Amino acid sequence: MSELTSLEEKVIEQPDNIIIPPPSDDTKYHRIQPFLHLSGKIPYVTNRALLILNQKINIDLISIWEQCELVVCADGGTNRLYDYFTDEQSRMKCLPHYIVGDFDSLRPEVQAYYESRGCIVIPQSSQYSNDFMKCIYCIQLHYQLKNTTWYEMLDTVNGLEELWNSIPHCSADITLYVLNAIGGRLDQTIQSINQMYILNKSDANLTLYFITESDVIFLLKKGQNYVTYENRSLFCDSGIPNCGLLPLGNGSVVLNSFGLKYDVREWTTQMVGKVSSSNGICGENGFIVECSEDIVMNIEVTK
Amino acid sequence: MSELTSLEEKVIEQPDNIIIPPPSDDTKYHRIQPFLHLSGKIPYVTNRALLILNQKINIDLISIWEQCELVVCADGGTNRLYDYFTDEQSRMKCLPHYIVGDFDSLRPEVQAYYESRGCIVIPQSSQYSNDFMKCIYCIQLHYQLKNTTWYEMLDTVNGLEELWNSIPHCSADITLYVLNAIGGRLDQTIQSINQMYILNKSDANLTLYFITESDVIFLLKKGQNYVTYENRSLFCDSGIPNCGLLPLGNGSVVLNSFGLKYDVREWTTQMVGKVSSSNGICGENGFIVECSEDIVMNIEVTK
Repeated sequence: MSELTSLEEKVIEQPDNIIIPPPSDDTKYHRIQPFLHLSGKIPYVTNRALLILNQKINIDLISIWEQCELVVCADGGTNRLYDYFTDEQSRMKCLPHYIVGDFDSLRPEVQAYYESRGCIVIPQSSQYSNDFMKCIYCIQLHYQLKNTTWYEMLDTVNGLEELWNSIPHCSADITLYVLNAIGGRLDQTIQSINQMYILNKSDANLTLYFITESDVIFLLKKGQNYVTYENRSLFCDSGIPNCGLLPLGNGSVVLNSFGLKYDVREWTTQMVGKVSSSNGICGENGFIVECSEDIVMNIEVTK
Repeated sequence: MSELTSLEEKVIEQPDNIIIPPPSDDTKYHRIQPFLHLSGKIPYVTNRALLILNQKINIDLISIWEQCELVVCADGGTNRLYDYFTDEQSRMKCLPHYIVGDFDSLRPEVQAYYESRGCIVIPQSSQYSNDFMKCIYCIQLHYQLKNTTWYEMLDTVNGLEELWNSIPHCSADITLYVLNAIGGRLDQTIQSINQMYILNKSDANLTLYFITESDVIFLLKKGQNYVTYENRSLFCDSGIPNCGLLPLGNGSVVLNSFGLKYDVREWTTQMVGKVSSSNGICGENGFIVECSEDIVMNIEVTK
């Protein structure tokens, strides 16, 4: 085959069930584990945090909560946590560690409830970063300054960002699940995606997973990505989970994939052009995507 | 002021209530009317269509239905229409004109219900365009070939696209409200946005409004846009509606706005960069956005 032919754009329809082994050189690929609802089955991973933003909680919160060692609520997200529980006994078992924001949405009685039970409340009135970013600073500081009372004496305007920018940054890896960042008002959805791209450059120690009622969303990084999971049935009970590769990073991306229903070779994707939606996951416990730039992926979750 | 200064990037915070008159030269701007829930109050506009895709209907369907002269359901969207009504009397009053798709989701009893009541069912098995695009062809053909039985004898694989591509296109303007294109699985949301950009070039007679539970989404076109409405209270009962300007067209956009909470001058926006989210609408019955390229806008709707 000539070099020209081998670089031709192609789409290859795959059978529903295939096995994709991990890439041979494991030092060069990004390993991504978008699992969910796996409590008890996996070795406990440290530095795993949950961030709850302000939309109605429509998923099984408890199974994610149990996998996380740190929980942060952003402003009105605290109300949503409070309202998620219908009885006091369950509510008492799920107390967030930090509550952060400008508090234009947080109900006073909800603030009082959690504050009286030891949750750390951090008011940040600055309008130059949003609640999502304020919480990111809080989570980074929590791991960076462990076992100190770093949150005392913070400036109430923009203290989190200022403290974070004033200290050296370590590289402890953090896996962050974010609820309610996607699926509400479109400007909030797109801003969340935008910040995921930016954080991937500025805070490379963070791995973000946006969790919605219908999917899990994450960034495939420039280069080779091996996305792996114990079993596809984690995503849905029958059939193959739908997925998409979404070029939202302001430019085109060349893709090669191994393990999707419609696998692609040297396939250029961009907005106002070709976008792979309603694709499917055929790799039974993993698949590979090589991309010339960072690209957003979503996988359907129906259980 | 030197020319250099006047082209500086700026953000200007505006009071909550301002009046923005229409641009002086009305031949050169795009007039956009993202109104909703206005039944009976406006002169009836012809060529106004409603397209229902396959997600749960979470809005007040009837008030939109009453403003549209044509209704098309895409595949499983028909089930959602059927299930929206709890009593037969209401269901009977809202019959779609066309049902289109590959019918991998349409329930047989739902198809039989609407078919027996005169709805035109158009199976299209092609996997090379999605249900959304098949419905766009159907709507274009409906207005183009009015008063004919163009839908008879169609090829059941890809007849709609083939017929549309075989006839000359007129330029009758069509306003199309689309339900359930945004807010479900992220790949479907992004594909809908992608197709809105593409249709704006290929089918300039179409004006699309995506309607969700929380917002209305449309395209601002390269040049000057005057977005106008009778009253901001159409969007929300109190306060100013939130909005965003979302550069999803694969490139940066330079913006000037007049009538937003955070008005911008010569402001460059792009993904993996600055994006205006959680902005607000201050213009009491309209605002102006000048953009160097097409850009998506969303306005919050809470009523």
